[in-house]
Amino acid sequence: MRGLMMDRPLLLRSFLQRNEQLHGRRTVSAVADDGLVTRTYADIGRRARLLASGLAGIGIGTGDRVATIGWNTLTHFEAYFAVPCMGAVLHTVNFRLFPDQVAYILGHAGSRAVLIDADQWPLLEQVIDRCPDLQTIVVMNGPPPGSRLAGRAVHGYEDVIAAGDADYDFPEFDENTAAGLCYTSATTGNPKGVLYSHRSMVLHSLAHCLADAFGLSERMRILVATPMFHANAWGIPHSAALTGAVLVLPGRAPDAARLVGLVEDLQVTHLCGAVSVGVMIRDFVDPAAARHDLTSLEAVWLGGQAPTEALVRWFEEHAGAEVWQGWGMTEASPLATFNHVDHDLRAEPTEDRHRRALRQGAPLPLVELALVDKDGHSVPWNGTSVGEFRLRGPWIAREYFDDPERTAEVFVDGWYRTGDVGVVDPDGYMRLHDREKDLIKSGGEWISSVELENALQAHPGVSEAVVVAVPHEKWRERPLACIVPADRANPPDPAELDDFLAARVAKWWIPDRYEFVSSIPKTGVGKTDKKQVREQFRS
Amino acid sequence: MRGLMMDRPLLLRSFLQRNEQLHGRRTVSAVADDGLVTRTYADIGRRARLLASGLAGIGIGTGDRVATIGWNTLTHFEAYFAVPCMGAVLHTVNFRLFPDQVAYILGHAGSRAVLIDADQWPLLEQVIDRCPDLQTIVVMNGPPPGSRLAGRAVHGYEDVIAAGDADYDFPEFDENTAAGLCYTSATTGNPKGVLYSHRSMVLHSLAHCLADAFGLSERMRILVATPMFHANAWGIPHSAALTGAVLVLPGRAPDAARLVGLVEDLQVTHLCGAVSVGVMIRDFVDPAAARHDLTSLEAVWLGGQAPTEALVRWFEEHAGAEVWQGWGMTEASPLATFNHVDHDLRAEPTEDRHRRALRQGAPLPLVELALVDKDGHSVPWNGTSVGEFRLRGPWIAREYFDDPERTAEVFVDGWYRTGDVGVVDPDGYMRLHDREKDLIKSGGEWISSVELENALQAHPGVSEAVVVAVPHEKWRERPLACIVPADRANPPDPAELDDFLAARVAKWWIPDRYEFVSSIPKTGVGKTDKKQVREQFRS
Repeated sequence: MRGLMMDRPLLLRSFLQRNEQLHGRRTVSAVADDGLVTRTYADIGRRARLLASGLAGIGIGTGDRVATIGWNTLTHFEAYFAVPCMGAVLHTVNFRLFPDQVAYILGHAGSRAVLIDADQWPLLEQVIDRCPDLQTIVVMNGPPPGSRLAGRAVHGYEDVIAAGDADYDFPEFDENTAAGLCYTSATTGNPKGVLYSHRSMVLHSLAHCLADAFGLSERMRILVATPMFHANAWGIPHSAALTGAVLVLPGRAPDAARLVGLVEDLQVTHLCGAVSVGVMIRDFVDPAAARHDLTSLEAVWLGGQAPTEALVRWFEEHAGAEVWQGWGMTEASPLATFNHVDHDLRAEPTEDRHRRALRQGAPLPLVELALVDKDGHSVPWNGTSVGEFRLRGPWIAREYFDDPERTAEVFVDGWYRTGDVGVVDPDGYMRLHDREKDLIKSGGEWISSVELENALQAHPGVSEAVVVAVPHEKWRERPLACIVPADRANPPDPAELDDFLAARVAKWWIPDRYEFVSSIPKTGVGKTDKKQVREQFRS
Repeated sequence: MRGLMMDRPLLLRSFLQRNEQLHGRRTVSAVADDGLVTRTYADIGRRARLLASGLAGIGIGTGDRVATIGWNTLTHFEAYFAVPCMGAVLHTVNFRLFPDQVAYILGHAGSRAVLIDADQWPLLEQVIDRCPDLQTIVVMNGPPPGSRLAGRAVHGYEDVIAAGDADYDFPEFDENTAAGLCYTSATTGNPKGVLYSHRSMVLHSLAHCLADAFGLSERMRILVATPMFHANAWGIPHSAALTGAVLVLPGRAPDAARLVGLVEDLQVTHLCGAVSVGVMIRDFVDPAAARHDLTSLEAVWLGGQAPTEALVRWFEEHAGAEVWQGWGMTEASPLATFNHVDHDLRAEPTEDRHRRALRQGAPLPLVELALVDKDGHSVPWNGTSVGEFRLRGPWIAREYFDDPERTAEVFVDGWYRTGDVGVVDPDGYMRLHDREKDLIKSGGEWISSVELENALQAHPGVSEAVVVAVPHEKWRERPLACIVPADRANPPDPAELDDFLAARVAKWWIPDRYEFVSSIPKTGVGKTDKKQVREQFRS
């Protein structure tokens, strides 16, 4: 027996329409080359419709992939809604990847148009010949460098807007229609595409805005340091549009000085970005000098990897801000868990509170989390039994775009095998140990590189630490710690680090070697690049 | 082009499962005949599965309607999940209706079983002969009065639980499967049934829990005075299960003393109920005597009709609690709008704040609100143009259960015609004037009975006021005010009331007559019964 409720589709256009009706006077601000630009949601809605009809006018139709290669800007934000709401697919491209990977991504997706920031033009010149489907180029945030490139028409973004139809309205269609496409870079092989639907994006946004998750609200002023090419910028643009939250987009190549300046000038309440962004801000701000004021911040949501306790304490002490985290990945839209700290745990002593804050959180509503061993059998949620995490839910991918071979590797029995390893506490909160490939297999036992890194980073002489496996004849693998000293000129004594660790981890976990470096290599999305560290110190 | 996300159905069972995993230690408390009973969500989940498998054992199958006739109790709460999650339909029956209406409802729904509170047995005896489909009776909260009634088997609730299968798990099925059935009593004709789906209930609950709506959270302790037979108790049981909020259910025939006692004893943070419940509490608590302490309350969510400014002020002054309201109806699951007060309006002077608090709110995400004139043409959202409200959205009914004639009257062009009349302010917040039938048509103009009532209730000599139309030879209709004086022995002087109103409403709105009464008649769901008032004073 079926219910007799209206069969209304879950579509992103409803966010935009509601926002215009209820929050038309609220704003999104973005850093442009000539300063801060602020636009109301009413204006953004109007321009998104003009953009959609303008794109239709230059040949973009239903189901077409429209790539974006751009920073966190107002134009990119408008495209975030215009493209999916017209029935096309927003294909955000990470321009920090190698040109070969960008060429692969654009070609594999079959993107028909690209909206590109003027400063990324040289990248497009390098890859255009390998993108036969790409017919239309729209240049954002700067003048088009020419009227044609390799035989393709080049348009200015504002010209497309100007040619749009003021009476255009977004169409209605099935909620399972594709809305977005994002490629996740693999450690081996080519990037893999995840094709989001309107339904998955709407449900993911509702979950974001739940009081017991991020609780995203109209009262927040949110600085989005997460790149908009990275997993829908964690879905924050959609959730902000749903609620009318004030958004702040940091524009081209933001550094710590710009981010801190935006927090101060626009009284930002919430900042979202990679853990490395949090580290960058900490290293930039000198609390003793009292030159910067971060106290408008209520919370800093850091992702990509686990923040250290030292970082959590720093933001608490110097900004009065909580550090929030979740766990997710491109395949999960990206948010699968969120570390909401229950009200009855808030009264706990600081140390216990931090221990809880360092967990990756509990599954969001509608997301199912499983912890399994190598054979796929369930592992108990007791805080000590280690297993691999699997996910199921309405905003988890069920396959990769046009990639049956890679699909078969990780989508099994209706579940997504994340490749992440860890434990679940009895209260349902998970703790991530490692990517499966980052675990160190030593003498038949596992060593968690993440736990070693956290232990090392608690040492006052250590600014940043990354632990990787190096081959070992007898033990198969042994840990090596690569360390950025707090005082570059005076790295800590290895024997002293040994003693420090001995009080914190099992004796056989203590690294065989410490290497002192001036910086740790990062991936295009700001995560520690363990692959590169491993290669550097293999011998 | 379709997205490639998992096709996971939105089912109520996911709330129950998540709650057991994450909030198993949290509780629901309910008043039973022998005192307060408290049960953990882990225990409730276990018992819900036992109940479902026990019901299956006595013949309840997929799609069967299972009626409940009961107060707000733990057993009723368990049935709220057990019945829909097994694939049957929870059919909540308002036992305050006339027996003829109850017989109609049970018969029309074709309910196969009924779960009935022991104290409602006499009602069942009166109607059973008119319910041919009703084969199974389960008695909750008391011993079964016999083993058979009119040839039907009678079971004790705990016996059904005891016969349940401990290994049973809820099945998975399509999200559009019917989950609940609730009849709305019409002013003329028979009640009309609304058939909810799992999808509509899940989406409605997510909307409830949004930070900018009710923001329902694990930190809340919520007293549900809204009857569980009334429009899913506003969806609060579902949303509480989603978040792990502590629920307090007031049991059989709660009066003001019990509700106030529960607030004090269990440190309730949020109370939900009809406006008449708020009035009842106000009249019971004497702030001067300082016998009662309502300061644990953060908010009181009152529904069914608009609260008066006097009531809003009373709760603010004597409980430190905000009064929240929304607008909705059985056909809307029930919540269509919610009056979230934006953060930037909170700093306004008290009077402005109250004026805003008295609005019925803005449409929830995914709900579309239209304001139209008699011909269905759009009316501007300017705060003054009056129209009828129409609704569309994934938790709005599209038809009545097995009632094509009544369906045709109100479900038009894909919209639900609510019959409610009012205005929408330019910021998208609506103000309800009246049910269309409660408007007073005087000399070709409309007089709002609600606005007159609000104005009268601001007078210190008025405890409660209701304004209805009485026939008038010249003007067609004129307003009559029926007033409960604050001091029963000294009703205010009509001339003084005229002067008081003259400063607040148009002169021709001033009622022709004032009638002083000791109480205002109420409907079975606690709303002012204007129909009865009209009939009483027609001549």
